[in-house]
Amino acid sequence: MTEEFHSVEKALSEHLPPREWQQVQRILYGKALKPLELGPKIEGAAQEQDYEVSGYRFEAASEQLRSPQIVRVGLIQNQIVLPTTESLEKQRSAIFHRMGQMIDNAGQAGVNIVCLQEAWTMPFAFCTREKSPWCEFAEDPYDGPSTLFLAEYAKKYNMVIISPILERDRNHGEVLWNTAVIISHTGEVLGITRKNHIPRVGDFNESTYYMESTLGHPVFATKYGRVAVNICYGRHHPPNWMMYGVNGAEIVFNPSATVGALSEPMWGIEARNAAIANSYFTCAINRVGTEEFPNEFSSADGKPAHRDFGHFYGSSYVAAPDGSRTPGLSRVKDGLLIVEMDLNLCRQVKDKWGFRMTQRLDVYAESLTRAIQPDFEPQIIRGKL
Amino acid sequence: MTEEFHSVEKALSEHLPPREWQQVQRILYGKALKPLELGPKIEGAAQEQDYEVSGYRFEAASEQLRSPQIVRVGLIQNQIVLPTTESLEKQRSAIFHRMGQMIDNAGQAGVNIVCLQEAWTMPFAFCTREKSPWCEFAEDPYDGPSTLFLAEYAKKYNMVIISPILERDRNHGEVLWNTAVIISHTGEVLGITRKNHIPRVGDFNESTYYMESTLGHPVFATKYGRVAVNICYGRHHPPNWMMYGVNGAEIVFNPSATVGALSEPMWGIEARNAAIANSYFTCAINRVGTEEFPNEFSSADGKPAHRDFGHFYGSSYVAAPDGSRTPGLSRVKDGLLIVEMDLNLCRQVKDKWGFRMTQRLDVYAESLTRAIQPDFEPQIIRGKL
Repeated sequence: MTEEFHSVEKALSEHLPPREWQQVQRILYGKALKPLELGPKIEGAAQEQDYEVSGYRFEAASEQLRSPQIVRVGLIQNQIVLPTTESLEKQRSAIFHRMGQMIDNAGQAGVNIVCLQEAWTMPFAFCTREKSPWCEFAEDPYDGPSTLFLAEYAKKYNMVIISPILERDRNHGEVLWNTAVIISHTGEVLGITRKNHIPRVGDFNESTYYMESTLGHPVFATKYGRVAVNICYGRHHPPNWMMYGVNGAEIVFNPSATVGALSEPMWGIEARNAAIANSYFTCAINRVGTEEFPNEFSSADGKPAHRDFGHFYGSSYVAAPDGSRTPGLSRVKDGLLIVEMDLNLCRQVKDKWGFRMTQRLDVYAESLTRAIQPDFEPQIIRGKL
Repeated sequence: MTEEFHSVEKALSEHLPPREWQQVQRILYGKALKPLELGPKIEGAAQEQDYEVSGYRFEAASEQLRSPQIVRVGLIQNQIVLPTTESLEKQRSAIFHRMGQMIDNAGQAGVNIVCLQEAWTMPFAFCTREKSPWCEFAEDPYDGPSTLFLAEYAKKYNMVIISPILERDRNHGEVLWNTAVIISHTGEVLGITRKNHIPRVGDFNESTYYMESTLGHPVFATKYGRVAVNICYGRHHPPNWMMYGVNGAEIVFNPSATVGALSEPMWGIEARNAAIANSYFTCAINRVGTEEFPNEFSSADGKPAHRDFGHFYGSSYVAAPDGSRTPGLSRVKDGLLIVEMDLNLCRQVKDKWGFRMTQRLDVYAESLTRAIQPDFEPQIIRGKL
């Protein structure tokens, strides 16, 4: 059942009576969103190529002194295409082909910024702890094959493309990083950003391959708005989300790879909390499907060695600064989520709630500076026990 | 419909087919919790006194070198008892009487730590912006009437009581604060903590009455565990939650007063995100009901002046470090939520996920220290537009 269950939102909308669904939707998902009409061409292409497509709109109030800032964002979630036993070249070509289809459709639908899933060029092989052959997927972010491939689409559709890859840093001893490349609408690389928080939990043996970013929390001023990328595990760390906000992000993408048994109840919480706390849009993207590897590996959980990692549950969604969110894409199928948003909502929510005014950054700068000292003593008040 | 709608969890469990409910519950609420059998005496008293009572258990794995640390926590949500037009003395006596009933029942049910709602001794009158008569409710946290009243219950039941009140600080010019008094199981005041983040949004005109705490993020080592209190608006500020964790809290209470139109879609997100991010239990408590005031006031939203604030939607709940949570208490009725938890779960989750290891506090201490400088320049990378 778990792996066939399409999505919470589908189950709720199908089974709840209309009045209950209205209340549940309001409380669990916030302000009701208008669907975005994509038209038969876009929907037909998705159906033919066997993936889900859906669209929603986040609106903002009209202002007197500022025009709306309407942006269309696309989130892509997908399974790997070929088995992990195929040659790396074939595996990669097949994924490139699949992405080409989906990005073409996003471009046709007027998407301005599209973001792919974490390490999209490859299976998420870090569970194996094998360096070979998986490290071969690592590539240069400026002229590696995936950047060259995507740059053509960026130019064709005047589209910013966020491309999370396994990076090989040739200027620093060929070390690997978990990186997102920001490809401008011109096809040029605007810059890169790297994963700030690296998991050491369950099958996520990622520090075996790459370490924590040293690039800080860059925000990229694109033609369509100021964007940042919080890669995967950084979603568990609220200060990481916060710094992208402090640096001025309006949309923060969270390309991820995470499996059901470990994190699914947290998935709808973390990126959405970040949208609320930081008055920006968040776009949470997760892989789909189960990836089987050639050699068995153990998971440090007392269970027998096995060849898969668990089910990547998809469920990609977008959350807004006012706490509302879209339904998730499917838990079991490739998907393209297209969301139109008026970025004016960010400042409107900032002005209304005033979190930036009430957040007391000075207190936390001081408190954290104390907390990292070796002789830090926590503020504990003790009574008679 | 909005004001009669009991709770999301009740609607879901009543209308979803069992297989769908199982999946929805897993994804939205995390690990299924065992009910806590409270017995006919406790349930009968609640029914007779017209409030909801429910109980759940959060379990932890057994360890070889450490015994379980089982604690029973009680959360109380309630309406004011008499109209706000009654004399202050009558209003307060009626609330004291009501709390006495509910705390007695919690004590009989073996609750070790009980927490009342924000400013529990009074209506949440800050929407009126009237200083008189509401400031009269402010009292000394060490020997004011509510502390003297609750100390008797603390001694009687060996119970820690967290009592959020409007404080009058007689040692500092009789200034007011929004404060929680931590009454030890001995009946002595173990200490106080104050609201760190003060809203200026909608009808929450609280900075008209009191300012931000200067007491930091104290954690209280009680007989039953290390507790902290994040009062109301602090739940919107992730670094506030974080500092209670850095200081060693195992349970953080979030006594609140918040109304539906403003915050309801955020309510299930924020305290739960904090439990996940900080590997501790969070206890979110909200008022219930609609409070009418004698004089009309306006809400700065273009609408006519009126006498009420909106509906406090209750929905108090507990979230655990593993991301699971209890159902909420009712949206419309007084309630006592009793939750038994094994505090060992906090360290077990810390060891499993390792967020404390991967959180990079040094980076955030440095980044925030830079961000508060007047000449701070955000980290923005600009391309051709």
